[in-house]
Amino acid sequence: MDLKTIVERNDTTAGRYFDLSVQLLIFVSIVTFSIETLPNIDSGTQVALGVIESVIVILFTIEYLLRIYVSDKKLSYVLSFYGLIDLAAILPFYLSTGLDLRSLRIFRLLRLFRLLKILRYNKAIDRFFRAYQIAKEEIVLFVTVTLMLLYLSAVGIYYFENSAQPEAFSSVFSSLWWAVTTLSTVGYGDVYPITLGGRLFTFVILMIGLGIVAVPAGLLASALSKARMDETNKEG
Amino acid sequence: MDLKTIVERNDTTAGRYFDLSVQLLIFVSIVTFSIETLPNIDSGTQVALGVIESVIVILFTIEYLLRIYVSDKKLSYVLSFYGLIDLAAILPFYLSTGLDLRSLRIFRLLRLFRLLKILRYNKAIDRFFRAYQIAKEEIVLFVTVTLMLLYLSAVGIYYFENSAQPEAFSSVFSSLWWAVTTLSTVGYGDVYPITLGGRLFTFVILMIGLGIVAVPAGLLASALSKARMDETNKEG
Amino acid sequence: MDLKTIVERNDTTAGRYFDLSVQLLIFVSIVTFSIETLPNIDSGTQVALGVIESVIVILFTIEYLLRIYVSDKKLSYVLSFYGLIDLAAILPFYLSTGLDLRSLRIFRLLRLFRLLKILRYNKAIDRFFRAYQIAKEEIVLFVTVTLMLLYLSAVGIYYFENSAQPEAFSSVFSSLWWAVTTLSTVGYGDVYPITLGGRLFTFVILMIGLGIVAVPAGLLASALSKARMDETNKEG
Amino acid sequence: MDLKTIVERNDTTAGRYFDLSVQLLIFVSIVTFSIETLPNIDSGTQVALGVIESVIVILFTIEYLLRIYVSDKKLSYVLSFYGLIDLAAILPFYLSTGLDLRSLRIFRLLRLFRLLKILRYNKAIDRFFRAYQIAKEEIVLFVTVTLMLLYLSAVGIYYFENSAQPEAFSSVFSSLWWAVTTLSTVGYGDVYPITLGGRLFTFVILMIGLGIVAVPAGLLASALSKARMDETNKEG
Repeated sequence: MDLKTIVERNDTTAGRYFDLSVQLLIFVSIVTFSIETLPNIDSGTQVALGVIESVIVILFTIEYLLRIYVSDKKLSYVLSFYGLIDLAAILPFYLSTGLDLRSLRIFRLLRLFRLLKILRYNKAIDRFFRAYQIAKEEIVLFVTVTLMLLYLSAVGIYYFENSAQPEAFSSVFSSLWWAVTTLSTVGYGDVYPITLGGRLFTFVILMIGLGIVAVPAGLLASALSKARMDETNKEG
Repeated sequence: MDLKTIVERNDTTAGRYFDLSVQLLIFVSIVTFSIETLPNIDSGTQVALGVIESVIVILFTIEYLLRIYVSDKKLSYVLSFYGLIDLAAILPFYLSTGLDLRSLRIFRLLRLFRLLKILRYNKAIDRFFRAYQIAKEEIVLFVTVTLMLLYLSAVGIYYFENSAQPEAFSSVFSSLWWAVTTLSTVGYGDVYPITLGGRLFTFVILMIGLGIVAVPAGLLASALSKARMDETNKEG
Repeated sequence: MDLKTIVERNDTTAGRYFDLSVQLLIFVSIVTFSIETLPNIDSGTQVALGVIESVIVILFTIEYLLRIYVSDKKLSYVLSFYGLIDLAAILPFYLSTGLDLRSLRIFRLLRLFRLLKILRYNKAIDRFFRAYQIAKEEIVLFVTVTLMLLYLSAVGIYYFENSAQPEAFSSVFSSLWWAVTTLSTVGYGDVYPITLGGRLFTFVILMIGLGIVAVPAGLLASALSKARMDETNKEG
Repeated sequence: MDLKTIVERNDTTAGRYFDLSVQLLIFVSIVTFSIETLPNIDSGTQVALGVIESVIVILFTIEYLLRIYVSDKKLSYVLSFYGLIDLAAILPFYLSTGLDLRSLRIFRLLRLFRLLKILRYNKAIDRFFRAYQIAKEEIVLFVTVTLMLLYLSAVGIYYFENSAQPEAFSSVFSSLWWAVTTLSTVGYGDVYPITLGGRLFTFVILMIGLGIVAVPAGLLASALSKARMDETNKEG
């Protein structure tokens, strides 16, 4: 069994272990990244985190070089989606010796997408893209209508609430925040209408909005079922 | 290529550019409208916004006259849905020289509907209307039941909470506000039951309501899938 | 055209007007009922509301007697669902001369169900009941599982939050209120976990709950589509 | 009719009564458990609750022994899912004479699952598992994507809000709490963005999130309909 099989495929035991090691490393990298954001970390922990980070980036670099080495079309890997992600994950570390590129480390999170490989549900992912193709036009239509509704809701509530709550609804822009939290039904409660007109308007907007905002998810679910059915019919 | 093709159709390069210019103009008009609502705008910006507004309205007027000019049935365009919107968008500007018709400028937002043309998804819009036709009876039924449930919820919570919270639940009308925010699951948290009876009532209403409020969106999604399937079958 | 046709059917002009009058009367009755709950009504308005109420009940009584008069099987109307509702709407008024039966006037709201006739969507209502029959077993299963999940969530959050927030999560019963507002995604914000354990628990419960609570509405929507399709196939 | 039929089956009158008694006992056990969590219980009630608890555990023990006695394969019952639940429900009581195992009583709640038998909807439960099999790959995919989205949302909001609200968004971990309450649309309102960047980010995340989080429920509903249809086709 050659190196190429181990690195690029996961249908052998060695290949599976390689994949698993990479995924574990990504997970450790994410946890380290999260811990670093904790306030009041003592200097001992900070040193430990720095060491772990260096080790991870070195291992990621080895993996990156390995992937280039075993690739038949080296350039096409380097320029591929995963190739660019893999590079973005390690580059900031090497560049940051002189400059302060701490914030660029966030690119390492892009490697999260590599975790999708854990699933090995390539079929399900394919199906998802086919489902999106099936329902694309309707989804784009509903997203556009949702955006319009958000804007019109913001303008409407601005007219009703601005004089009663000049702070919370100071402009159409700040009213948009209300529109987003309301039509998504999140409803934090930081801004809400208090006038009779504003409440009636909210009622009307919600009656329309609830029938629009939830539709894309339903369309996607229904298209996914259709994509699966088509597959079964073809196979049968 | 004559003027008519450019103005009325978008299957030529010139026609597409014309449409795109109109859409860009609508977008600029919306942004200007929103910026005007910002508090504490200095006088320099106000003058600039006034100039932009005038230019936009003049361009909209030219577009309106062009559309009448190229139209075969001029009157039917003027009285059409888009014709009336296009007029409503410019008329307040010309009338407001003497009177204060600032608030009428809101009609310009109606031109938002012109943006639907960006999509050029006439098929998807057709499908939406067909889907609505398919599921119309059920949607109307569920919306009516939702309205009844809203009212009955408001009456119920009024009886449970009025004596405990005479401010928040002062009448059936103010209780309706609670019913709207609760059954839509927005839940701002400005009003909520505190008595045992009111909480039990909320539980019952939510158990029923969650199974009713979300149904129209599901019906629409399912009818849209059906409309698309019918289309494919016909074409196939 | 005899009285029976007018009262019992709505496929003639007179019948339609009779129905419309009754529905209008119900609407007025509801509005009156709601206005009466307003605080600080002056005595003039109170007298006016009292008069309107009396007139409405007298008209409802005439309608009730008419319906008995034209009915072929008088007893079966009196004991029918609508017959009992019609009686419950007027009886408290006549009984309340001696006693204080104000609160019984709430029965008049039951006449709301008569408004369902506005729809004249008997087909859609039939379809709804057939859809419920189709999906009944799954709906009952999911509602039962939802109830269990509510209870287990309440017990869990009680263990995590009771010591940190002894007021908000004082017992499993008060924790149930949190479970209801959280799993319905209403989230008023009057009670929420603050401990790490409680928040992790909320995360797990929501991941499971979101996949369960929304299912009955989806089942109903899908069964309604099925019921409509079966109908079309039969007719075709 | 022998003891085995009564204990193990519910298609005879005696068997049904046995099942009903067990279910009633479970219900009483749950109510007792909940009441015990109430603060400020007087000593009289505490004694009463203790007695009820002892009686329930003794009856559960009798039932457990009966189930072993009538079982053909005694060991396989003892090691079965329900067998272990039944044991876990009574064991803590007998072990707690010396030690304080109060908290282990929570295992008694596991007997809740026995209540699923009330439904006797074995078909619906079967269908649920078949539906899960049908949609498994998509559900796992969407749950994984939801988890990724939760993490990325937490990292994003941390970058936008940390400096403005160092308390509420102190680290990626505390930001995760915001991500959970927002993407589930619960929105308690204990943490929410206040910066422009954070609000725009929330808008983007919600536009994506609403189209993902609700999909598994839709998939399950659609797969359940499919499972039911397959059944009807087979039977027909």
